[in-house]
Amino acid sequence: MAATVTIKSGASWQEVAEDRQKYRDATLAKVEPALGKLKDIPRNTLPIAKELLTAEEVKITESTVEELAKQIGDSDISSVDVVKAFLRRAVLAQTLTNCVTEVLPDQAIERAKYLDEYLAKNGKPIGPLHGIPISVKEHIGMKGLDHNAGFVGWVGGVADDDALILKILRAAGAVFYVRTTQPQCLMHLETSSNLYGTTTNPFNTTLTPGGSSGGEGALVGFRASLLGIGTDIGGSIRGPAANCGVYGLKPTTKRLPVSGLKAVGGGQEQIVPTIGPLSTSLEGLKIFTKTLIDAKPWLREPGLLPFPWKEEDFFNGRKIKVAVIWDDGVVKPQPPVTRALKEVVDKLASSDKFEVVDWKPYQHDRAWEIIANLYFCDGGKENDEALASSNEPWLPLSTHIAKNKHVEHHTITSLYKAVMGRDAYRQEYANLWNSTATSVTQDGTPEGMVDVILCPVGPGSAPKIETAKWWGYTSQWNLLDYPGLVFPVDKVDVSKDSVDMNHEPRNERDEENVALWKEHGAEGYKDAPVSLQLVGRRYEDEKLIQALEIIQAETGLPFASYT
Amino acid sequence: MAATVTIKSGASWQEVAEDRQKYRDATLAKVEPALGKLKDIPRNTLPIAKELLTAEEVKITESTVEELAKQIGDSDISSVDVVKAFLRRAVLAQTLTNCVTEVLPDQAIERAKYLDEYLAKNGKPIGPLHGIPISVKEHIGMKGLDHNAGFVGWVGGVADDDALILKILRAAGAVFYVRTTQPQCLMHLETSSNLYGTTTNPFNTTLTPGGSSGGEGALVGFRASLLGIGTDIGGSIRGPAANCGVYGLKPTTKRLPVSGLKAVGGGQEQIVPTIGPLSTSLEGLKIFTKTLIDAKPWLREPGLLPFPWKEEDFFNGRKIKVAVIWDDGVVKPQPPVTRALKEVVDKLASSDKFEVVDWKPYQHDRAWEIIANLYFCDGGKENDEALASSNEPWLPLSTHIAKNKHVEHHTITSLYKAVMGRDAYRQEYANLWNSTATSVTQDGTPEGMVDVILCPVGPGSAPKIETAKWWGYTSQWNLLDYPGLVFPVDKVDVSKDSVDMNHEPRNERDEENVALWKEHGAEGYKDAPVSLQLVGRRYEDEKLIQALEIIQAETGLPFASYT
Repeated sequence: MAATVTIKSGASWQEVAEDRQKYRDATLAKVEPALGKLKDIPRNTLPIAKELLTAEEVKITESTVEELAKQIGDSDISSVDVVKAFLRRAVLAQTLTNCVTEVLPDQAIERAKYLDEYLAKNGKPIGPLHGIPISVKEHIGMKGLDHNAGFVGWVGGVADDDALILKILRAAGAVFYVRTTQPQCLMHLETSSNLYGTTTNPFNTTLTPGGSSGGEGALVGFRASLLGIGTDIGGSIRGPAANCGVYGLKPTTKRLPVSGLKAVGGGQEQIVPTIGPLSTSLEGLKIFTKTLIDAKPWLREPGLLPFPWKEEDFFNGRKIKVAVIWDDGVVKPQPPVTRALKEVVDKLASSDKFEVVDWKPYQHDRAWEIIANLYFCDGGKENDEALASSNEPWLPLSTHIAKNKHVEHHTITSLYKAVMGRDAYRQEYANLWNSTATSVTQDGTPEGMVDVILCPVGPGSAPKIETAKWWGYTSQWNLLDYPGLVFPVDKVDVSKDSVDMNHEPRNERDEENVALWKEHGAEGYKDAPVSLQLVGRRYEDEKLIQALEIIQAETGLPFASYT
Repeated sequence: MAATVTIKSGASWQEVAEDRQKYRDATLAKVEPALGKLKDIPRNTLPIAKELLTAEEVKITESTVEELAKQIGDSDISSVDVVKAFLRRAVLAQTLTNCVTEVLPDQAIERAKYLDEYLAKNGKPIGPLHGIPISVKEHIGMKGLDHNAGFVGWVGGVADDDALILKILRAAGAVFYVRTTQPQCLMHLETSSNLYGTTTNPFNTTLTPGGSSGGEGALVGFRASLLGIGTDIGGSIRGPAANCGVYGLKPTTKRLPVSGLKAVGGGQEQIVPTIGPLSTSLEGLKIFTKTLIDAKPWLREPGLLPFPWKEEDFFNGRKIKVAVIWDDGVVKPQPPVTRALKEVVDKLASSDKFEVVDWKPYQHDRAWEIIANLYFCDGGKENDEALASSNEPWLPLSTHIAKNKHVEHHTITSLYKAVMGRDAYRQEYANLWNSTATSVTQDGTPEGMVDVILCPVGPGSAPKIETAKWWGYTSQWNLLDYPGLVFPVDKVDVSKDSVDMNHEPRNERDEENVALWKEHGAEGYKDAPVSLQLVGRRYEDEKLIQALEIIQAETGLPFASYT
């Protein structure tokens, strides 16, 4: 293959981008057999899969992680067949939604062959992810491959090793076969870059899949992946998962390995980024997370915390106390979100397994001011330089976040003050949660508190391109470092959601959100998945997952089909 | 009592200090019955206790936490009698070593009475620390009392609530009866301030008890406390415990509550301070730590991590792998330390319960450069201002640390770079530890590594006043955030330690250390406790404690008596 065209070697940003796309297309062309011709791209692309893939490929790719793991383990299907099906569906996903930076057919098929041979020889899988294809957001380093994190100026920086998370997953049997798109600066809730253009939502291509793990969202939503790796510092796993009708987990920080990732902000400790899974099943998230934690990654990445995976019954038959946020008090959700929330709450309230209460959101506007400030403690200098290194143009949503009015170039003194402000807010929120206790022990420990918060993932379903501006429904939990788990509930339905928003806007973001609904209505967001978020206290990731398992079992969620 | 004299009300720093001492003396005078007259202060003050206290008081105060807890619980002795004995011994300790900022006879006796009544009425203790007197370093806030953290300019700042750690301990039955001295800036490995002058070592008053929890060290070392609370960001628990012949634990960060403490550096996240116990018994440290963790303090202080107390057998009969640091490669220890280390290693090596290996210290000089820089990211500005607020003079050891050559006033960019430097070092040290593995699992997890590191606590026993300059033996583990546990081994013995140091100095600190030994020799440090440190990996606090329990049981440590 020709040498990578880079800024350093004298090319323009456009030439670098063109070369990257050519490189991507060359990898796509290697996937065999080639797909049939596509007439044009419909608004909802999901049905195309059944037209252009074989029935067997559809069956494989629409299986869950737990189903495929069993079938492969039982030798009912080979790892090679599995990854080939996903490779073909990924090529199709790229054609339809522009979500891929490259496919890796050679290494994936070679690895799958090795796994098939291993299984045949040893009579048992190599690990819990034996033969499971996993898609990977580009800024998670893969040895020998370009590692640009979405900056044109960083193209040509090749990863000299695999990220630790990939090493552990590969040892557990995973097969890496595709890398996915991310937005400029990795800081949009959408996915547009000067390198690859705009990634769209497979359920409605006038919408965004969300971001920054939007390549993953589109790919997993289209069932061209059943398990992908994203990252989240403000909603970047949860937004794409929600917008694309799949499950997504932002774990508490410092549980899963992040070494070997590329991004600006190295050494920034004020708001800690997380890495986590998107999957077509809740069980997929769980297997992924448990596999990583069981490998004791804290021994190899000393910034991680040695919390073992907790396999226990957190509720033990007692009622789960669910608190509901209907509206964060900043940007009121659009009707499909409120409807989905009401559908779920009604089911929970009618079950004797839950106690449902309202949660009064506590100063989420202040929370946004704190985190929007702490994202860019250097005033965005490093980010500015990364963009300036190629002269690539600023995209509107990059400006929206990196030049937001709360950003300042801190001194150490002002930084410390801002951190104390963050900690004061965290303390107040902990007090709020403790205030739901039904009793307090002699030593002052609160008991019988709310278990989980149920809330929106954003102020609407998947937004129209370039309109995803309010981060508060997800960034709130990054600021507090509470784990957030996103799950599909329903889809925007013209017959149910054609409802006006009679709401006096509280602020500019709220006004935009109302105006978007007035302009596009249910018809404009048709077929978009509607998802919700379950939030737990810090390091209660396993409890959060169990709560959703029980909620799903009791309510029959999701209420729509996504294939 | 008269109003506090403060800088704000127009007094000079000398007047503020004089008033604080008068206030302290007034509290001491309330302790009854008054002590007999003291002729003069001998170099080794320990025998004085038996001269001026009753036999019963000596018996009580020389008991351990676990002994007293049982006797009080069995109603063999009252909480009131216990705290009265400790109050009198604390008055004596103050007279001998200047380690107290105030005693609290009224509130302590009132609390002890309540506990005695509670026990009589309920037939069982209120909690695991029922009736146990606990001494408290001054900068840990007590409601309604002055809270100056050692700065003259901060005198008059009254704590509006008890620190969370005190609330939990009190609920568990603790009785707070005395507050103890700390050095200017809280950043000496000794204990001198303009408010109270110099605290000395009860075993040899020409020596320092260490710092910054040196009031605690002297008090517990003199058996005027059997359990005290200190803080440690570079050795401030471990140094005093070691110098005064008692046990001290610097736990891993974010396990024990630090809210309600006063110090400069709020919002500083680069090197996280810790709080922990000093005690006359290992069991005392364990009860203290377990009691706090069992109260789930993370619910009330959201910066803490929800690691429950681990009550398990970490070794399960297998050999404990102990790695020994004889010399950190920067400052070679003086003969008593090397002798103590050799005595312990010989005993371990002759037991079949241990495997002893040497540990090659990895760039501990670089570790010092990193942490010495990160202590004062604002170039020491906040510290400078706190001192300037009263015009109090800088003490030599304040200048030594706050103006050390590695300090810089960081920009955000340089701060992030320094943090990445810290993390790189932590990664390299983790790799080093992993390299001791005897095997690696299929998923890459190292197994069979070194369990604990055995090493000095400093380059000598308790140093001569104003000579404690090399922090590396303790700060090393703050940088790495490894728990450190200090325990008494022996005492400086003229008959055994009169040995020359034939060592070519490597650097200025090393040269000073050799010169001090040449000048003072064993005679100069006579009777000083000699202690060692056991270090574990992050969050292996419980395993570390168990390792020392087994080491003590096998070796018969300590080899000297300290009463």
